[in-house]
Amino acid sequence: MFKATVLIKRRSSILDPQGVAVEKGAKHLGITNIKGTRIGKLIEFDVDVNDRTAAEKEVTEYCSKLLANPIMEDFEFNLEEVK
Amino acid sequence: MFKATVLIKRRSSILDPQGVAVEKGAKHLGITNIKGTRIGKLIEFDVDVNDRTAAEKEVTEYCSKLLANPIMEDFEFNLEEVK
Repeated sequence: MFKATVLIKRRSSILDPQGVAVEKGAKHLGITNIKGTRIGKLIEFDVDVNDRTAAEKEVTEYCSKLLANPIMEDFEFNLEEVK
Repeated sequence: MFKATVLIKRRSSILDPQGVAVEKGAKHLGITNIKGTRIGKLIEFDVDVNDRTAAEKEVTEYCSKLLANPIMEDFEFNLEEVK
């Protein structure tokens, strides 16, 4: 079995209105040194497969078909073997 | 200046209905070995401060007041100095 950690980020060329909004909120709270906030996703799950290549294939499929939006986002993942 | 990377996760005692829903979608696509999907946030930004202690203080305030929900979520962050 593997523990997967997936990071999903918007491409840098694509605006992140949620990040802009949160940062505006920060300014109102007196948090003034934060710039360029971008909000992505951190997704964790277990992959119940014993072979690393098969696990990578399944995680890539999960990310590209469901977790990430291929038009706007890039993903990367890490698999850690669990015994 | 520092580059901050913040990871926000729901506490493990708290259900993640979004993760459950995405995983159900995966089953319909034939992705069947994924278990226990949990969805959190990955947030990146710059902190325009030269002192590490001051940067840590500002990031902690940003996370605890705005980015994370202190009732349900835990956060951790990493600061990387940028020259």
